Amino acid sequence: MCTSILYTAGDHYFGRNLDLEISFGQQVVITPRDYPLNFRKMPRLDHHYAITGMALVQDNYPLYFDGANEEGLGMAGLNFDGPAHFFPVEEGKDNVSPFEFIPYILGQCKNVAEAKELLKSLNLVNINFSDQLQLSPLHWLIADKSGAAITVESTASGLHVYDNPVNVLTNNPEFPDQLTNLANYQSVSPANPANTLAPQTALASYSRGAGSHFLPGGMDSESRFVKEVFTLQHAPAGETEVANVTNYFHCLHAVEQQKGLDEVGKDQFEYTIYSDGVNLTTGTFYYTTYDNNQINAVKMHAEDMEGQQLHRFPIASHQSINMQN
Amino acid sequence: MCTSILYTAGDHYFGRNLDLEISFGQQVVITPRDYPLNFRKMPRLDHHYAITGMALVQDNYPLYFDGANEEGLGMAGLNFDGPAHFFPVEEGKDNVSPFEFIPYILGQCKNVAEAKELLKSLNLVNINFSDQLQLSPLHWLIADKSGAAITVESTASGLHVYDNPVNVLTNNPEFPDQLTNLANYQSVSPANPANTLAPQTALASYSRGAGSHFLPGGMDSESRFVKEVFTLQHAPAGETEVANVTNYFHCLHAVEQQKGLDEVGKDQFEYTIYSDGVNLTTGTFYYTTYDNNQINAVKMHAEDMEGQQLHRFPIASHQSINMQN
Amino acid sequence: MCTSILYTAGDHYFGRNLDLEISFGQQVVITPRDYPLNFRKMPRLDHHYAITGMALVQDNYPLYFDGANEEGLGMAGLNFDGPAHFFPVEEGKDNVSPFEFIPYILGQCKNVAEAKELLKSLNLVNINFSDQLQLSPLHWLIADKSGAAITVESTASGLHVYDNPVNVLTNNPEFPDQLTNLANYQSVSPANPANTLAPQTALASYSRGAGSHFLPGGMDSESRFVKEVFTLQHAPAGETEVANVTNYFHCLHAVEQQKGLDEVGKDQFEYTIYSDGVNLTTGTFYYTTYDNNQINAVKMHAEDMEGQQLHRFPIASHQSINMQN
Amino acid sequence: MCTSILYTAGDHYFGRNLDLEISFGQQVVITPRDYPLNFRKMPRLDHHYAITGMALVQDNYPLYFDGANEEGLGMAGLNFDGPAHFFPVEEGKDNVSPFEFIPYILGQCKNVAEAKELLKSLNLVNINFSDQLQLSPLHWLIADKSGAAITVESTASGLHVYDNPVNVLTNNPEFPDQLTNLANYQSVSPANPANTLAPQTALASYSRGAGSHFLPGGMDSESRFVKEVFTLQHAPAGETEVANVTNYFHCLHAVEQQKGLDEVGKDQFEYTIYSDGVNLTTGTFYYTTYDNNQINAVKMHAEDMEGQQLHRFPIASHQSINMQN
Repeated sequence: MCTSILYTAGDHYFGRNLDLEISFGQQVVITPRDYPLNFRKMPRLDHHYAITGMALVQDNYPLYFDGANEEGLGMAGLNFDGPAHFFPVEEGKDNVSPFEFIPYILGQCKNVAEAKELLKSLNLVNINFSDQLQLSPLHWLIADKSGAAITVESTASGLHVYDNPVNVLTNNPEFPDQLTNLANYQSVSPANPANTLAPQTALASYSRGAGSHFLPGGMDSESRFVKEVFTLQHAPAGETEVANVTNYFHCLHAVEQQKGLDEVGKDQFEYTIYSDGVNLTTGTFYYTTYDNNQINAVKMHAEDMEGQQLHRFPIASHQSINMQN
Repeated sequence: MCTSILYTAGDHYFGRNLDLEISFGQQVVITPRDYPLNFRKMPRLDHHYAITGMALVQDNYPLYFDGANEEGLGMAGLNFDGPAHFFPVEEGKDNVSPFEFIPYILGQCKNVAEAKELLKSLNLVNINFSDQLQLSPLHWLIADKSGAAITVESTASGLHVYDNPVNVLTNNPEFPDQLTNLANYQSVSPANPANTLAPQTALASYSRGAGSHFLPGGMDSESRFVKEVFTLQHAPAGETEVANVTNYFHCLHAVEQQKGLDEVGKDQFEYTIYSDGVNLTTGTFYYTTYDNNQINAVKMHAEDMEGQQLHRFPIASHQSINMQN
Repeated sequence: MCTSILYTAGDHYFGRNLDLEISFGQQVVITPRDYPLNFRKMPRLDHHYAITGMALVQDNYPLYFDGANEEGLGMAGLNFDGPAHFFPVEEGKDNVSPFEFIPYILGQCKNVAEAKELLKSLNLVNINFSDQLQLSPLHWLIADKSGAAITVESTASGLHVYDNPVNVLTNNPEFPDQLTNLANYQSVSPANPANTLAPQTALASYSRGAGSHFLPGGMDSESRFVKEVFTLQHAPAGETEVANVTNYFHCLHAVEQQKGLDEVGKDQFEYTIYSDGVNLTTGTFYYTTYDNNQINAVKMHAEDMEGQQLHRFPIASHQSINMQN
Repeated sequence: MCTSILYTAGDHYFGRNLDLEISFGQQVVITPRDYPLNFRKMPRLDHHYAITGMALVQDNYPLYFDGANEEGLGMAGLNFDGPAHFFPVEEGKDNVSPFEFIPYILGQCKNVAEAKELLKSLNLVNINFSDQLQLSPLHWLIADKSGAAITVESTASGLHVYDNPVNVLTNNPEFPDQLTNLANYQSVSPANPANTLAPQTALASYSRGAGSHFLPGGMDSESRFVKEVFTLQHAPAGETEVANVTNYFHCLHAVEQQKGLDEVGKDQFEYTIYSDGVNLTTGTFYYTTYDNNQINAVKMHAEDMEGQQLHRFPIASHQSINMQN
């Protein structure tokens, strides 16, 4: 159902896996600084930070799934079906619809600290983009190039902003519960464990990797959360951009959902449609898709950042195989 | 399906849980030294070590499920359906039927070392007690008051005698595989585990006992084997006979099968019919049943050990409640 | 750290395991109807329902760990260290200290419905019994002979009263999280599972009980909660009081903490000090202790229910062994 | 430590992950039909089937890690440290060293049936390639384009040839134990499980993918075996070569070992150095490396199959990123 991370290795890399059973026609979309950002209940932003990310463009509006701005603030929306609750418009609050939430934050905030300020008066309202395009139940990971990360959840009890000390978000249950659950797995280790089960008896490990025997591998959101936290915290830092991008995608692919393993309806299976990541310092956006293993990239700063027109790049979804003979 | 242990605490205590869906009319049976032990293919033993244990008496023959002799050698037969294989009579071998195996060993051997000698020429033969009472597929735990224990398994590949370093036996798969599997659980601990999952993040244990979170609790034989090894190796030693017997039964009850949890056929459920144990030094036989929590005891040396008649004690299976007012 | 249940089998049986590393000198205590119940901030109750249960009597005040009243309402306090939060006295509320909470409810309420009413204006206040006897962080299970059960938790966010559909309470995390976590184990079954892992390959179950392979066996509160829910929902109903009491104690002993398995400090181990249960219809109180397997009983109605003096029964904590010869 | 599979989807795809902490300078190597294959104790093969695969070329000898021949028979050697045992030369047997084993089989056998014939007289002998290049402890997966697969293990008890019904091989323990262990996970499912834990209570699944909650995700060989069997048996079949190759690599990457997660020595970590696969019908060899996500390919039939010289292709190990702007 999706996994989002912030990976730190000199630079910071922010992005996510999108796990779904259907694809929506998303593209890589760069929104330049002067593209007018309209909001249903808030004033238009005529000038704002430029944004790059994965979006569905509908009626010339970039519906971002995830992305980052030129200042190095990233944000991704992930499925949160069940706990997610959005509210009626409330006087005196900043009423923003979930579909506007990513440009609202990325357009105005340089970093997590500024986002937290804006969130203080936020009310996520239940206004659909259109009758055809209704709101998805989402929660969000927001992270910046200082390494700070927060989780934003709007539930029946109100808007919650949680510090995210592990730089990972998946889906339900609510974020504090995901953190609590990590304690169950705290003994998982890359190293061979000491034998505390039967200290009077020598037990031979029959396999390398015995320390991670209890690491979960399921498609469910708790399993992915635990596995990703472990993977991310033990991932090495590279010495080059290419090495970092390589490590980053291995971290995301560690919780990839393969086709056929997560049945969401009769003969319908959710899988990892794409994995993406932005270097928050350089603004370069990288992605792979289920159908194309090669890493693709779009450079934010190679485009005109001042204009009023969206820059759109179709997904390179055809498997690109390098024939050596 | 059954669990057998040797518990060491000054004295040694040997016995088992019997887990089945039906009861066979077993009793506590003391076989005195001069009760003639007949064997189908081996010479009769007119004089032998006295034996105490749980047995079904059929045609005046004590079909022992488990027991111990006056020298402090204990032996129990446990379900081993699948791998168990018994052979035709073989010339030049000591041909013993599985139903005779416990008296054959306990009648003649003082300890595990002597049992090993006898096992060298043993052939477990496929001779039923009767057409009505056919052989069960079994394997055996043999242990003595020095703390030595072995597992005996007769499979299609022959008779196997394994040292048992953990003093526990349950059921399938074959014993070396049970030992190998312990390595998967070696990080289970009574103590709170170190956080190696996410060393960059402080994780609060929300519960005492977090170190045993991965201890299995299933009714299956692997789960019981792992749980019992952990329980036994961390069990304290008492300072009195009563304290030891108390600890011993807690060790066995840790892998008790409660009614309703192990469905072996339509509306048929296996459960722990009885739990028993012999003090290998004193010969006192203790037991509880599913229906009677109180510990009952039969003293071997309170009976005539020289006679030719079996001493039989009915199971105290009615719940004995101590009314305090 | 403790497990409390309501078991239904014709009559209803309510009680708990007390898991701790030290014993406090508790007794079986019957509080008759006219024993004056004093409260620090609430009016004295001179007449109230009679109560039976396990309590520490301090300065002639019955500090109940758990118990039930003559109307068949039961209540138990269990460790809730971390989330538990008690408040200053608040004007306009019914200010009750946690140590008074059990007599406050059991003295006045016939059933869960009446308890819910009383809870509407309750404020659990941070008033210690004495400087020597400070408040424990607790939450509570309240259940009645109609089969209704609720969980009461006082946390930093206020007093929470949750319907308890599974009739089980252990410890942290908060009750809704324990319920959510059950979903992770929903495939655990008494029956042999279908092979959905590898449907193209026949997989032979090597053991009975394979359906419960993933049942947890740890000492931690999540493991005990899951195991107890499974055990309780599959426990048979007996046809006699003795059969029911027998089943009830097997349900509690399924999550017994054996000595040595839960290290809470250097050479300090938590274990199940006692297990108890009240027949909510007859008022008979049953218990076992770690040191005494036999079931003991105290009949409420055998004592004078009208008096002003507590009836106290010392715990039968010496192992009572039935010597058969 | 390595995972090898046969994936069936119209055509058959055979290959493996190589998981190690060091790289040996392997290349894609095509051995044409007339390249003389020398053996230490067996007659030279001057004419044989052409072979393609991953190999280290040493002294002009192709030390294959894995590969396939032009007839569609594939073979891979995987770590089997502990159980692996190789024997002295034995008169009357076909004495082959493990380092010669892959060309010995792939050079002469069209399919698994023919390989089984050759294996009847095989003795795997303990002859090192050189003092510098000693034998690795290995076992092997052999599979063909009919979908047949076998596992070959040489242990202290002799040479064992097992039918492999799941088309997966990882590492220890011995193959029959890996199959037995699958039974523990048979309830794992792509679909949402029925609630058999607590049938009296409605349990809401909080996440998609709940059926795979118990799927293991560890680096150890049992975890990878279980996860790969599940992944492979539920993988869809594509309708084109590209779709099949795509699915195939997702199956292998599902058990990829990410850097940092499997510590095999101080600051030394095993990881998936490469993943490869051969279309057994067309002979095209595909691979990815940890450092290069793009799929690379070498066509067997594009080279001269008749010659005496090895065709060698360096690994495309530099990350190839597709810059879209």
